[in-house]
Amino acid sequence: MVQSSRFLRACQGLPVDRIPVWLMRQAGRYLPEYRKVREQVSFLTLCKTPSLAVEVTLQPVQRLGVDAAILFSDILLLLEPMGIEVSFEENGGPRLDPTIAGKGDVEALPVPDPEDQLGFVLEAIRQLRATLGGETALIGFSGAPFTLATYLIEGGSSRDFAKTKGLMYQEPRTFHRLMAHLARSVLLYLEAQVRAGVQALQLFDTWAVVLSPQDYREYVLPHMQELLESLRACQVPTIHFSLGTSTLLDSMAKLGAQVLSLDWKIDIGEAREKLGSKQPVQGNLDPMALFKPAEDLCRTVSRMLEQGSRWPGYIFNLGHGIHPKTPVENVVRLVETVRTFPVPAAKGTDG
Amino acid sequence: MVQSSRFLRACQGLPVDRIPVWLMRQAGRYLPEYRKVREQVSFLTLCKTPSLAVEVTLQPVQRLGVDAAILFSDILLLLEPMGIEVSFEENGGPRLDPTIAGKGDVEALPVPDPEDQLGFVLEAIRQLRATLGGETALIGFSGAPFTLATYLIEGGSSRDFAKTKGLMYQEPRTFHRLMAHLARSVLLYLEAQVRAGVQALQLFDTWAVVLSPQDYREYVLPHMQELLESLRACQVPTIHFSLGTSTLLDSMAKLGAQVLSLDWKIDIGEAREKLGSKQPVQGNLDPMALFKPAEDLCRTVSRMLEQGSRWPGYIFNLGHGIHPKTPVENVVRLVETVRTFPVPAAKGTDG
Repeated sequence: MVQSSRFLRACQGLPVDRIPVWLMRQAGRYLPEYRKVREQVSFLTLCKTPSLAVEVTLQPVQRLGVDAAILFSDILLLLEPMGIEVSFEENGGPRLDPTIAGKGDVEALPVPDPEDQLGFVLEAIRQLRATLGGETALIGFSGAPFTLATYLIEGGSSRDFAKTKGLMYQEPRTFHRLMAHLARSVLLYLEAQVRAGVQALQLFDTWAVVLSPQDYREYVLPHMQELLESLRACQVPTIHFSLGTSTLLDSMAKLGAQVLSLDWKIDIGEAREKLGSKQPVQGNLDPMALFKPAEDLCRTVSRMLEQGSRWPGYIFNLGHGIHPKTPVENVVRLVETVRTFPVPAAKGTDG
Repeated sequence: MVQSSRFLRACQGLPVDRIPVWLMRQAGRYLPEYRKVREQVSFLTLCKTPSLAVEVTLQPVQRLGVDAAILFSDILLLLEPMGIEVSFEENGGPRLDPTIAGKGDVEALPVPDPEDQLGFVLEAIRQLRATLGGETALIGFSGAPFTLATYLIEGGSSRDFAKTKGLMYQEPRTFHRLMAHLARSVLLYLEAQVRAGVQALQLFDTWAVVLSPQDYREYVLPHMQELLESLRACQVPTIHFSLGTSTLLDSMAKLGAQVLSLDWKIDIGEAREKLGSKQPVQGNLDPMALFKPAEDLCRTVSRMLEQGSRWPGYIFNLGHGIHPKTPVENVVRLVETVRTFPVPAAKGTDG
C-alpha cells in the first residue's frame, strides 16, 4: 500500500521527497497558544475534553508544519479505568493511588474497555482525522506495559525503581501477570485508537532503561513481542520509544516494532549502521540542543540529517520530549532545517 | 611492581587467586553500625571528623571482608574551599549555594589547596593506611570535572540538566574554562590523597551519561584525558566510573583510565568482549539485585563471575552505590559468593 504521507512512507522504509519530522511533546508548554489554553483548564481536563485536546494537538501542525500530529493525551489515563486515581501536581510528577504491591492487587485490576471508559480519547481521534489532510499523519500512543507497571507500583516517578524491582525479584510470577494484564489492556486501547482513525502507534517504554539487559530479556521482551505481534493485525506502523535504547539495541531489534525511536546517547549514524538499512529509525536530537545558538543548532541538525538519511526509513525527532522552556523560534528553525534538507538521491532500501 | 593486594593486581590485569570484591557505598546506611554513628553526628560532620570517617570506612572491611576500603567522604567536599556552601537535607539531595551561571563566576573560583583546606580527608587517609593490612587496598576518590560542574551549575541534583547544557551550548568557552578549573582542582586533590597513602583512585563521572556521544567527546573527553594523563605520575591505578558507561564505551576506552567501572546496562561478558582482554573492568551488578531471594542472587552473581573472569583484570562491584534499605545478610552472601568463586585457571592476559 503506497502512502501519501511521507511520515508513513518513512515508517515503511520507503523513499521520500524530504525527511519527515515531528517532535515528541510538540504540543506543550513552550507554545504560547498552548499555555493560553492551559490557563483555562487543568491538564487532566484538557486531556478529557475532545475539542480542547484536538485544538492543542493541531497547534504545532499549524505553527511548525510538522509531518505528523500526535494525539494530546497522557499515558497514565489508561490506568484510571483500572480503579487507580491519577493526579498531576503543578510542576511536580504524577501521583497514583492506590499502588500495586502484590498478587491480590494485580488480580483485582480490571481490563479497561476503551470504547466505554476512554471514549474522550477516541472522540478526539475521530475529530482530528476529520480535520487533518492526508499529508499530516495522526499518531496514537500508549505507555508500554513495563513503564505503566513502574507507575502502578511506585505510585509516581522514581529514582531507583526499588519497589518495581522488589516486586519483580521477589514475586516474578506476579510481575509477569501484571505485565500480561497491562499488555492486554494496551492492546485493546491501541486497537480502539486505530479503529477511531490513528495511522501509526507509538509505544512509550521510557523506563525500560533502568533494567539490565538480562532483566529486560526476561521480564519485558516476551510481553512486548507478543503485544507487537498482535498489533500487526491493525496494519499500521508501530514505533517503539525508550530512553537508553542504545544500551539495549540488540533486544530492541528483536521487538518486532516497525520503527525504533532512539534517544541521543548514540550517534544516529552508528545506530543506523548497527541496525542495518532495513530498520527504520526515529530520533534523536537531545531536546536541550534547542537551547543552542541558531547557527550551532542548524549545524547539529544538518549533521544528524546527513548521518540519519543515508538509507530510507528515517524520521527526524527529538530523543525525548521537548523542554517547556524551549525558545519557540528555535523549534521553528529546527523544523525548517529538516524540511529544507535535500534528501540524498534515492538508493532504494537495499543500499 | 608485583602487588600483594589482589585488588591492585586485578587493576593491573594480573592473575589473582580469587576475584577481588568491594562495593560502592559499602560504608553506609544499610549497616546498623553505620546508622549508630550517624545517630550522633550529621553526614558532613562525619565526613570532616577523621576518627569517625576512619571508623565507618573500616566497618564493611570488618563485617564483609571486602578486598578494598574506600575512604568515607563525599565528592562535593572539594567544592567548599571554592567558596560554595554545601548542605545535605535528610533524605533529600544536596544543595549548593551560590551556583555558577557565567564567565565571572568561573573566573572567581579559587583552586583549593588540599593540604590546607581538606586536611581532614588526608588525615583520615593517613590513619586508615596505618590500620589496614597490606591485603586490603585503600581507594581514594573524587568527582570527575563534568559531574562536579553539574552540581556547581544546577545547585544540586537535576532531572534534565537544563542549566548545565544551557551554559555548555551558549558559552562553550566558559564551560571549557570551568572544566579546566575543576580538572586542575581534582588533580591536586587526588595527588594529595596519594601522598597521604591511597593506593588507587576512582573518578566518579556519574552524570556524564546525560550527554550525547558527540558532546561527551567535545566537552568532557579532552579534559578527562589530560587529567588521567597527569595522574599517571602518581603511579597508582585509576578507575573511571560512570553511569551509562555502556553507551559511551568507545569513548571510555580512550580515556586512559586503568580500570573502567561499568553500570548494569550491559552484560559484563559483552563489555569484556568489546573492550578486549587487556582492559581491566569493574562492576556491574544492579544494586537492586541485592533485594533478590538468596538463591536467585547467588545465581545472578555466579553468572556474572563466570562472564567477567574469563580474562584477568576483573573486579567485582555493583553498578552504582548500594541502596540504604538493602538487607545486610544479602550483602554478606554476595561477598561470600565472590570470595568462594573458583577463578578459572590462569590464561594470562593474552587469552
